[in-house]
Amino acid sequence: MKKRVAVLGATGIVGQRFVSLLANHPWFELSMVTASEKTAGKRYSQVVKWIIEKPMPNQAEELVLEPLNVSRIVEEKIDAAFVALPKEVAVEVEIELARRGIIVISNASNMRLEPDIPLLNPEINADHVEAIEVQRSSRKWSGAIVKVPNCTTAILTLTLKPIYDEYGLKRVIVATMQGLSGAGLTGVPSMMILDNIIPYIEGEEEKVETESRKIMGLFDGNTIVFNNEFTVSASCHRVMVLEGHSLAVFIETNERVDVDEVARVMEEFKNNKIKDMSLPTAPLKPIIVRREIDRPQPRLDRLEGNGMSVVVGRIREDKALNGIKYFAVGHNTLRGAAGTGVLIAELLVKKNIL
Amino acid sequence: MKKRVAVLGATGIVGQRFVSLLANHPWFELSMVTASEKTAGKRYSQVVKWIIEKPMPNQAEELVLEPLNVSRIVEEKIDAAFVALPKEVAVEVEIELARRGIIVISNASNMRLEPDIPLLNPEINADHVEAIEVQRSSRKWSGAIVKVPNCTTAILTLTLKPIYDEYGLKRVIVATMQGLSGAGLTGVPSMMILDNIIPYIEGEEEKVETESRKIMGLFDGNTIVFNNEFTVSASCHRVMVLEGHSLAVFIETNERVDVDEVARVMEEFKNNKIKDMSLPTAPLKPIIVRREIDRPQPRLDRLEGNGMSVVVGRIREDKALNGIKYFAVGHNTLRGAAGTGVLIAELLVKKNIL
Amino acid sequence: MKKRVAVLGATGIVGQRFVSLLANHPWFELSMVTASEKTAGKRYSQVVKWIIEKPMPNQAEELVLEPLNVSRIVEEKIDAAFVALPKEVAVEVEIELARRGIIVISNASNMRLEPDIPLLNPEINADHVEAIEVQRSSRKWSGAIVKVPNCTTAILTLTLKPIYDEYGLKRVIVATMQGLSGAGLTGVPSMMILDNIIPYIEGEEEKVETESRKIMGLFDGNTIVFNNEFTVSASCHRVMVLEGHSLAVFIETNERVDVDEVARVMEEFKNNKIKDMSLPTAPLKPIIVRREIDRPQPRLDRLEGNGMSVVVGRIREDKALNGIKYFAVGHNTLRGAAGTGVLIAELLVKKNIL
Amino acid sequence: MKKRVAVLGATGIVGQRFVSLLANHPWFELSMVTASEKTAGKRYSQVVKWIIEKPMPNQAEELVLEPLNVSRIVEEKIDAAFVALPKEVAVEVEIELARRGIIVISNASNMRLEPDIPLLNPEINADHVEAIEVQRSSRKWSGAIVKVPNCTTAILTLTLKPIYDEYGLKRVIVATMQGLSGAGLTGVPSMMILDNIIPYIEGEEEKVETESRKIMGLFDGNTIVFNNEFTVSASCHRVMVLEGHSLAVFIETNERVDVDEVARVMEEFKNNKIKDMSLPTAPLKPIIVRREIDRPQPRLDRLEGNGMSVVVGRIREDKALNGIKYFAVGHNTLRGAAGTGVLIAELLVKKNIL
Repeated sequence: MKKRVAVLGATGIVGQRFVSLLANHPWFELSMVTASEKTAGKRYSQVVKWIIEKPMPNQAEELVLEPLNVSRIVEEKIDAAFVALPKEVAVEVEIELARRGIIVISNASNMRLEPDIPLLNPEINADHVEAIEVQRSSRKWSGAIVKVPNCTTAILTLTLKPIYDEYGLKRVIVATMQGLSGAGLTGVPSMMILDNIIPYIEGEEEKVETESRKIMGLFDGNTIVFNNEFTVSASCHRVMVLEGHSLAVFIETNERVDVDEVARVMEEFKNNKIKDMSLPTAPLKPIIVRREIDRPQPRLDRLEGNGMSVVVGRIREDKALNGIKYFAVGHNTLRGAAGTGVLIAELLVKKNIL
Repeated sequence: MKKRVAVLGATGIVGQRFVSLLANHPWFELSMVTASEKTAGKRYSQVVKWIIEKPMPNQAEELVLEPLNVSRIVEEKIDAAFVALPKEVAVEVEIELARRGIIVISNASNMRLEPDIPLLNPEINADHVEAIEVQRSSRKWSGAIVKVPNCTTAILTLTLKPIYDEYGLKRVIVATMQGLSGAGLTGVPSMMILDNIIPYIEGEEEKVETESRKIMGLFDGNTIVFNNEFTVSASCHRVMVLEGHSLAVFIETNERVDVDEVARVMEEFKNNKIKDMSLPTAPLKPIIVRREIDRPQPRLDRLEGNGMSVVVGRIREDKALNGIKYFAVGHNTLRGAAGTGVLIAELLVKKNIL
Repeated sequence: MKKRVAVLGATGIVGQRFVSLLANHPWFELSMVTASEKTAGKRYSQVVKWIIEKPMPNQAEELVLEPLNVSRIVEEKIDAAFVALPKEVAVEVEIELARRGIIVISNASNMRLEPDIPLLNPEINADHVEAIEVQRSSRKWSGAIVKVPNCTTAILTLTLKPIYDEYGLKRVIVATMQGLSGAGLTGVPSMMILDNIIPYIEGEEEKVETESRKIMGLFDGNTIVFNNEFTVSASCHRVMVLEGHSLAVFIETNERVDVDEVARVMEEFKNNKIKDMSLPTAPLKPIIVRREIDRPQPRLDRLEGNGMSVVVGRIREDKALNGIKYFAVGHNTLRGAAGTGVLIAELLVKKNIL
Repeated sequence: MKKRVAVLGATGIVGQRFVSLLANHPWFELSMVTASEKTAGKRYSQVVKWIIEKPMPNQAEELVLEPLNVSRIVEEKIDAAFVALPKEVAVEVEIELARRGIIVISNASNMRLEPDIPLLNPEINADHVEAIEVQRSSRKWSGAIVKVPNCTTAILTLTLKPIYDEYGLKRVIVATMQGLSGAGLTGVPSMMILDNIIPYIEGEEEKVETESRKIMGLFDGNTIVFNNEFTVSASCHRVMVLEGHSLAVFIETNERVDVDEVARVMEEFKNNKIKDMSLPTAPLKPIIVRREIDRPQPRLDRLEGNGMSVVVGRIREDKALNGIKYFAVGHNTLRGAAGTGVLIAELLVKKNIL
């Protein structure tokens, strides 16, 4: 029996990704799509400006859009709701959904830092799902809320984890070149970005700096404790790339890094927490290392592992930090949003939470 | 009496910038332009693919291109030659020109690190011109060679110097987003860069890491000594911006930085070495600080100070390095190449070397 | 004594162009700028996202934005109002302004086809200003309304007129590649246009097809009569160019065209109706013909004649229509909007209407 | 038994498309790939700058590049050679290959207009393969040469044919906006095309104007006779789109067109000459008609029918020509090059020529 799932905010770019991933999913039945009041009652294919590289699933074309309404979601016996709503809207419905028994897997940034809300990048911290029990008992929810990390953070932490495990981390500096889709379908006007860079993305640097330490923290049986061993400093910039976030990463490690071994450490990713779970959306290789001098590149590498792998290259010594530096590309609306959301849902099924 | 000057390699993008700056210069007479053998004898306007935003100077249109020939340059009583040649070609002519009495102001990267060759970013190290005397006596040249720094380095060091003067520098980390013109008129194929980033620029990172320390070094009366107080780590990337290099800079200083004061320190630039020289190409403000949250941006800010100012913004605390971070934009073919070349020539006139 | 002028809708892209052209104008005093209610009371420089290639005029920086209010405009003794408002807003104020004595020079598309409203591309139909007398007497206005043509139409008709005069026109087919600024500062989301073309611009084709025939019509002393000698068919497309509209034009003429002479006919533009008026914004050459095989190009040629010239190239025989075809580039927010607006105002001053 | 095929010029963009289409083809065995002398002996994956959206086929990765050598091709018992060479190189080998028994399916433009060389857009003129018999007997070849049309022509003619069949054609005017890949991997420098349009593509307009009439001509048993019923006028322009050519088409028909029926006529495409042949690369629908006001768009529609369908939209009345106009998008390196090449090969297999 497939789980019945809804996508809340199904017409935006992250919503489109959710629809694309869920429409023919082996474990989930895409049973409801919501959008704004004014589109309610129309067919999904009539309303959506479908722009992703995969064709719209036939099954999705005929779905009828509903307005966002908690009671309707409960009535429809939805097991899990994937949230691709703006934070301001998400805030109003997520808790109510959890209270009424729905598993909420949310891409919205509210509550991401709360100590009983798992912020999951499954390969790194699948075990944080245990916090759901705490969450449920203290908040008196029959459902639950789990959060997908910020897009850049999801990509960055995946590359950091094997290095952390092997060498320890002290300081991480990251400068990003982020794709347009991160701002939504209409977020970046073409007049502002053509032949240009916008060196500011609201809230992004703070998210990278704090969420990284929660994802790489520990669940102590009671709360998720932030990792205080390392600090992160981020500088985030928008560039004229359709999709894919690119990161220049500089790292000071605790122990001396053997540059020649880092690639192997990343490719092996020994402590991958979902390695043997056979989750359908898990990439074969969470981290792919390219040896060419000029890779990865966002247009050419963003879809590796169906957009769920992060591609790393140019691993080299960093003389200022006595550590290493490298370049990484990840897909911001797949690994950085909807893809990780679906992967989390699969993990919850495996753990019998969903 | 105006000095007679030549531009060697006058049809490329840096050559076009030199021609544009020199054609109506108050101190210089643009007397010769050279290009490849096969264009020799043709008018400049017939051959050049003029792409810069200023119209081609009338005077330049009618100049007849010559092949590169040291004897012709001497015959024509050229006082100074501006070199916009590829390194491989420059290597063969620069020493010969200097030997035969020509002042060579070169954008080519050969010899940049030699201890008697000034590598000049005039606001920072105008006094390094004193090395010319050493150069002449030891190499038995009647002319001289001075070098324009690497484009990114010229922009970066201008922003570093006031901070170095006030707080001292320990570590500098810089991630760049570099404009297309840095690779020349045809260097980056559109198929490779549209919707993409190329995370590698040959030789660039090494240049930034070493040249910075030479520019900010001392001339000890005999050689130019590299500054060993700080280290630089660079990660350089090409993005789809026509002109202008953008830099995300992270700094660890010796003394605690007052973030609120950094802007003032940069704007004042107390130790500007050419402050009172009235050089025509010197910008009124070498560093312009923008207070908006999303500036500078390359398309909007690259031409500040006629492309000779560097524009800095988003100055903020860096928690990983216990220092500061900021974003800077400079014009790579003006401040980073031809503009600084002409500024150097003006300095040499002022110092009676040219 | 300079005329006191206002720019209504001063923060958009056309508004910025008006401000840039009027701030230091020899005949006009920029006395008022309006924008939306919520920005009222703020300084222009605080509110505007200035994106044009010329720096913001010092004088404009300090202007205080006012809300749109006809009484305030009258109180301030504004002589002429330049309208860069959306059509829906323009409709509500223009007639009232004209009624109360203001000369309205409007870029909005309402009323463009009415027979007593001059639709002016001055080089072609400066004499249509005579309709103002009719307009005033029949509508009982002490002011007046004149309209700036649609951007594409302004560019197209300028190239058509000399050919019409010399050879007669039967059919005109035009396919356009239009710059982003035509849709305003935020009109085209980058996600929609990167690596793409949008083959539809609302209302554009109809405007080109009808306005062309009004501009090239006759004022018969009573009404402006549309030219019925030729028909125009347009196909309009948005491309990823910042500014500048490019037109592929195919023409069937009445008389046989001598292809070699067309360039001369265009450059001479014998019947230029403002040739000897010395209007400050009139370009020296309304039409510039380029002989290179690959020109004009929007990035390189859009600013010719300060954006008021149209640049034509690739004039060649058209074998399907037994006529000619050519490629033309014009600046859509200067020749196609604010520049022509200011040129019209200058014409009205010369004619003692303003 | 699969036919053994070679791709000559396998590393360029069209070569990559051929490799991608042939590597796992049900009827063909990709047995040889050639490139320049200096890459000979290296593995394909080491040399190629793979940029197409599909991953490099595993089988192709290990192929060893050979230099271009007719004898080697014969020795290797190659049945058919797909030519993606520059015209200058193709000229030298194609005839020799045909003489020595190889079936040459060539994307190079030489010989395209010769009366015994089929220029095939299979849905339109599959029957022109009969000219091979004439070709062989008169030229004494045991092999044969067939040509793939110019990219724009392939796309244009596919849309014209059903209209021609139903209404007759008098005049066709086409303005193109062509993707970058049409100029090869490095043909268009990014400095030339960013924020720009290049209004000239060498030879393109002549090819569209003449090849269209050959493709839509008749094989009279002896020669392929050009269609003289209609004339074509083209204006061709390069825009910043990665792949996909976009066409604004204006048509004068012989008989009055019912605009509402044109979409149906195109979708039905009654006379599709390969309708019942079950060729693997033939698209289900050669022409797809979109009803949205703003489609087709190259980024969103170029891969329809695996890049073999042409997508048409905005079909509307043309008042200047008393006909119709529409907008069409086709994939220039699939329908316009390698895809049609492979489709031709499949046709030749079906006809027992290959």
